[in-house]
Amino acid sequence: MEKTSTGAFPSTMNSSEKQETVCIFGTGDFGRSLALRMLQCDYSIVFGSRNPQKSSLLPNGAAVLSYLEAAQKSDIIILAVHREHYDFLKELTEVLKGKILVDISNNLKIDQYPESNAEYLAQLLPGAHVVKAFNTISAWALQSGALDANRQVFVCGNDSKAKQRVMDVVRTLGLTPLDQGSLLAAKEIENYPLQLFPMWKLPFYLSAILCVFFFCYCVIRDVLYPYANGNQDSTFRLAISIPNRIFPIAALTLLALVYLPGVIAAILQLYRGTKYRRFPDWLDHWMLCRKQLGLVALGFAFLHVLYTLVIPIRYYVRWTLKNRTITQALAKTDDPFSTTTAWLNDSYIALGILGFFLFVLLGITSLPSVSNMVNWREFRFVQSKLGYLTLILCTAHTMVYGGKKFLSPSSLRWYLPSAYVIALIIPCTVLVIKFILILPCIDKTLTQIRQGWERTSKPTSNGQYLKQSSICMDSQL
Amino acid sequence: MEKTSTGAFPSTMNSSEKQETVCIFGTGDFGRSLALRMLQCDYSIVFGSRNPQKSSLLPNGAAVLSYLEAAQKSDIIILAVHREHYDFLKELTEVLKGKILVDISNNLKIDQYPESNAEYLAQLLPGAHVVKAFNTISAWALQSGALDANRQVFVCGNDSKAKQRVMDVVRTLGLTPLDQGSLLAAKEIENYPLQLFPMWKLPFYLSAILCVFFFCYCVIRDVLYPYANGNQDSTFRLAISIPNRIFPIAALTLLALVYLPGVIAAILQLYRGTKYRRFPDWLDHWMLCRKQLGLVALGFAFLHVLYTLVIPIRYYVRWTLKNRTITQALAKTDDPFSTTTAWLNDSYIALGILGFFLFVLLGITSLPSVSNMVNWREFRFVQSKLGYLTLILCTAHTMVYGGKKFLSPSSLRWYLPSAYVIALIIPCTVLVIKFILILPCIDKTLTQIRQGWERTSKPTSNGQYLKQSSICMDSQL
Amino acid sequence: MEKTSTGAFPSTMNSSEKQETVCIFGTGDFGRSLALRMLQCDYSIVFGSRNPQKSSLLPNGAAVLSYLEAAQKSDIIILAVHREHYDFLKELTEVLKGKILVDISNNLKIDQYPESNAEYLAQLLPGAHVVKAFNTISAWALQSGALDANRQVFVCGNDSKAKQRVMDVVRTLGLTPLDQGSLLAAKEIENYPLQLFPMWKLPFYLSAILCVFFFCYCVIRDVLYPYANGNQDSTFRLAISIPNRIFPIAALTLLALVYLPGVIAAILQLYRGTKYRRFPDWLDHWMLCRKQLGLVALGFAFLHVLYTLVIPIRYYVRWTLKNRTITQALAKTDDPFSTTTAWLNDSYIALGILGFFLFVLLGITSLPSVSNMVNWREFRFVQSKLGYLTLILCTAHTMVYGGKKFLSPSSLRWYLPSAYVIALIIPCTVLVIKFILILPCIDKTLTQIRQGWERTSKPTSNGQYLKQSSICMDSQL
Repeated sequence: MEKTSTGAFPSTMNSSEKQETVCIFGTGDFGRSLALRMLQCDYSIVFGSRNPQKSSLLPNGAAVLSYLEAAQKSDIIILAVHREHYDFLKELTEVLKGKILVDISNNLKIDQYPESNAEYLAQLLPGAHVVKAFNTISAWALQSGALDANRQVFVCGNDSKAKQRVMDVVRTLGLTPLDQGSLLAAKEIENYPLQLFPMWKLPFYLSAILCVFFFCYCVIRDVLYPYANGNQDSTFRLAISIPNRIFPIAALTLLALVYLPGVIAAILQLYRGTKYRRFPDWLDHWMLCRKQLGLVALGFAFLHVLYTLVIPIRYYVRWTLKNRTITQALAKTDDPFSTTTAWLNDSYIALGILGFFLFVLLGITSLPSVSNMVNWREFRFVQSKLGYLTLILCTAHTMVYGGKKFLSPSSLRWYLPSAYVIALIIPCTVLVIKFILILPCIDKTLTQIRQGWERTSKPTSNGQYLKQSSICMDSQL
Repeated sequence: MEKTSTGAFPSTMNSSEKQETVCIFGTGDFGRSLALRMLQCDYSIVFGSRNPQKSSLLPNGAAVLSYLEAAQKSDIIILAVHREHYDFLKELTEVLKGKILVDISNNLKIDQYPESNAEYLAQLLPGAHVVKAFNTISAWALQSGALDANRQVFVCGNDSKAKQRVMDVVRTLGLTPLDQGSLLAAKEIENYPLQLFPMWKLPFYLSAILCVFFFCYCVIRDVLYPYANGNQDSTFRLAISIPNRIFPIAALTLLALVYLPGVIAAILQLYRGTKYRRFPDWLDHWMLCRKQLGLVALGFAFLHVLYTLVIPIRYYVRWTLKNRTITQALAKTDDPFSTTTAWLNDSYIALGILGFFLFVLLGITSLPSVSNMVNWREFRFVQSKLGYLTLILCTAHTMVYGGKKFLSPSSLRWYLPSAYVIALIIPCTVLVIKFILILPCIDKTLTQIRQGWERTSKPTSNGQYLKQSSICMDSQL
Repeated sequence: MEKTSTGAFPSTMNSSEKQETVCIFGTGDFGRSLALRMLQCDYSIVFGSRNPQKSSLLPNGAAVLSYLEAAQKSDIIILAVHREHYDFLKELTEVLKGKILVDISNNLKIDQYPESNAEYLAQLLPGAHVVKAFNTISAWALQSGALDANRQVFVCGNDSKAKQRVMDVVRTLGLTPLDQGSLLAAKEIENYPLQLFPMWKLPFYLSAILCVFFFCYCVIRDVLYPYANGNQDSTFRLAISIPNRIFPIAALTLLALVYLPGVIAAILQLYRGTKYRRFPDWLDHWMLCRKQLGLVALGFAFLHVLYTLVIPIRYYVRWTLKNRTITQALAKTDDPFSTTTAWLNDSYIALGILGFFLFVLLGITSLPSVSNMVNWREFRFVQSKLGYLTLILCTAHTMVYGGKKFLSPSSLRWYLPSAYVIALIIPCTVLVIKFILILPCIDKTLTQIRQGWERTSKPTSNGQYLKQSSICMDSQL
């Protein structure tokens, strides 16, 4: 290939001459899809195959040759075969020397092999420049190119010129290359397309448990109790009334759980007198999925708002209001206006609206494109200060909702208090501890610890420093 | 220019010495705006002009010379003249050899010329390194720099060093360069600023047709019919009641139209027995604007939610409720509570809320910054699984809304059924076909086809492979 | 270091051998955090310290040497000391020659020193390749790596190879490097983490003033007046009724203030007959924070919507409605349905909903990831055309809200008109002036001026061109 011998600008100079040749090893679905796309972008394609004669169904314009012949035609070879069949490449060691070998393989499971496929390939063929690319993209996306999610191609490799050339190919195909550094990143890139919302698992299970528990609790109090005590059919409450009790409780509890790990971390640091010791794994993991916890909580809050706003158009509510009015009109009883009730009712609603508003603000700032625009100080301000304000407002909203009935024995049914009383336990705990932690005397010690100060000056055993996955230096987040 | 002769780090080394000289050909508005901005960023500017003596109104610090003299002063020449006047550059072939020529021109129409302006320029001056840049930016943005939309500068060119230097200039001006690859990309870059929401046209016209049709339909049923039958003035319904019938219908229909092309594509693939054949153009185009269709549907759903939530504060509704209560109070008739009605009413509302919630989730994941964070598997899960769940919930919401009156002859007016009955046709069709497609026997064949299997093994004529713009391998999207 | 002598691919070739050595000067908190993170990513770390013997508490695997010895071990030296102590580096001039010196320092105040720390360092050690990096990242983020806001590392430097190597280190640490060009950018990068929403200050203060003024105004009219005239206790209105007057007024006024500077700029340009003259500073600043003004206005509009939708579930409203119904039922008076009232009421609500819908659309398009997807023409269409339509709808909403009572003397209390009447002043002014400006005769002149035409052809003094921070060429934005 004389094209690559142009020393200075190998990558982009060629593309003006069009018809740069790319070789694809393997004639499977992904190889064919890639070839089709490249043919559309004026590349010339050579397939390498074990049985060139047998390979049919290949796009026009693409020649099929033996591996050896195909590899000689191009200096970029895309490897569209499974890792298990890489062995045949050893025979091609000579011809692949100095060529760019693009590993596009994926595994079936996360961390299936000790080393990534691309690193394994690089060990197999030390003379070739291995570049990992295209594995995060689907055959479908290659041909339609219409969906944003699929336009990002993670690229990594040890040879920067080889990587640059592959990134130029990616760009020519209308996709967006993202340089991920050296081949060390290949493992992560190979695991990436196998994940299904890994950080959302804890929040999802937590909220499922919360919902099921409070659903049973509310069914007992609001459906079984009236049925047992008055033979009343309240099953229709399952559609709106009961969800609208579960959702705010789940929202408030999850929001409090966003701030609980920070508070626990602060206590641990105060107790240990140093920040240079690893937190327990469960705390680490909890802290890493606080954003997801918060977003799930926001989802529940959003549902609660909608369920609350439809109250006046419900048949049950309209019927109740109408009947009460008629009864009163017929009885000609007086129902004087109570300013206290108006105050309680209005302020509980207002607190809820303001809390929800701040919650939505927090959600918007957690959008990747928005949080990329703010600096660390601004992000901390929003997520910590505004976050705690949201928690305070939502807790107050729940407390004022109880109003005069709060903790009154008359609201007990079968000795069970109202569900919202239980929901207040965690938020109140977090707020009380947080309040203690920001008392000047305690806050001062904590700040010192977070700036690197340690209570004991005797050297601790060094072993514990290594391989720490996360140390919290700021419990406010 | 001795500056460019420094081989190693031409681009960034210079900027520390400040006062790098850039030459601008043409003294029009954009050239002057660019010059102003560059002067502010410590560049030194030389204008090239046909009549250097006549050129006035140029910013201070910028010299005006003849084209020849100006070109000699710098190795970056920005061409701020129209394509029609490029001919004068031929006389400068000698002096422009090896220089970086930045083409910033735009056309008046999409695809105005067979080749892009930058490629035309490169043919005209084979010795110069042509780089396309700055054409997507407005003169206004150059000087204010405050608006996000305008900070992106698409750059392409065949010489990677020349491109790199131009990208450094772009960065110094406080803008964000985006490398688009070789000069082949210039055509797309030149068309880019001329587009006005090209993918939104089909959804826009579709929804306009839907709205007009259902507006007329509802006017006939809800305004003309009462007037003809009882001389009732219902024109006030035009403000809220009728829009609140049109919007949910448009939302549901458009949402179903998002999933219809996938279903049609699956049927086509089953019928043809291969995925390697091009879909008809209309289906291709339809599939490419599904995201936009979905977002328009979400807009209508949002309006429907707002229009529904304001129902209880409407004068008409309050008046009706009050009058009904008074009538009943005076007549002392009994209106027993109907659990069935409560169930129907509550579950129709709950289905609507849940459907809207999922719809909003789908909308959020289609934000570019969010969809960039998820991988292909996650994106497919959200857009396909959650998408169909949304469609099912919204269809069920509409069906339960009908409740007992659904398809009852009493709701016919002038033989016209209620509008929502018509709205159910497309969603139900899509859901029924989809249900058939996921039956194991059919799903198995379809999966095979999508993995590259073909029913007929005889080689098809190769011609049809080439230049396929989009092949659908996944009808679920 | 023999590693850097490999000419071709210094940056990425090394990382495959793992255990690249990086030297950190300074053993403070940030230095230790960085070392920990790098150790986790298979770097080998050497600390440079004044008193290597005294340095304790360092992570395992990290050697502590004198500055001189440490610098010899690596060709990347990260400087984790304060600017005030940079002087000691002079003694190391010889050993630092040709090495990459990464300046990670921050200041305590914006623009604390005349030149940036990185530029000061480059002057101190002309032989070293100074790269600015890591200063925007917190010690916490370095170790957790979980928060989006902190993954961006701004990098700048004059030597492009040195910069490239530092960017590779950044990538290996799992962070996202952003090339900001030459060292000139260091000043901005150093100021960046010290800012706290600089563009939000004007909108914030403006809205605070608006809220306080209208709060007092409404308290006088709605709380003090009823108390003085009828001894009525209306204090409960402070929770919802009065905020729901202040918020829409603030939203409408702020929205009008988004478009007012554009209108003023157009008048100034018409008066001056040129666009090449700088606007007054206050107008410049005002124009630059229009996006923020608009978003604050959207926040108020969102609160207004929520406060309005909860009206029917308020105790006060329910009590009033019930009492009115009972009174009427007992009096058996007739309350005929008024089509006019229904029309006024419904259209005021519909206008509000449509205005809010467009407002939300504007807000979504101002999200960074969305506005990056649209070109200049589309952005202008949305922000200008849709923006004015929003303003018109919201102004009309407020006017129709007044309905028959608008400007009627009977709604005066203590000679004070309703608050919404005052809120209409600025929007109406903006709309009237805008209407005059788009009259063909005036629009033609304005367009000419914005395309570079000037009324006077005599050369203006050149001095005023330089250092213009912003010239408005488009008042529509």
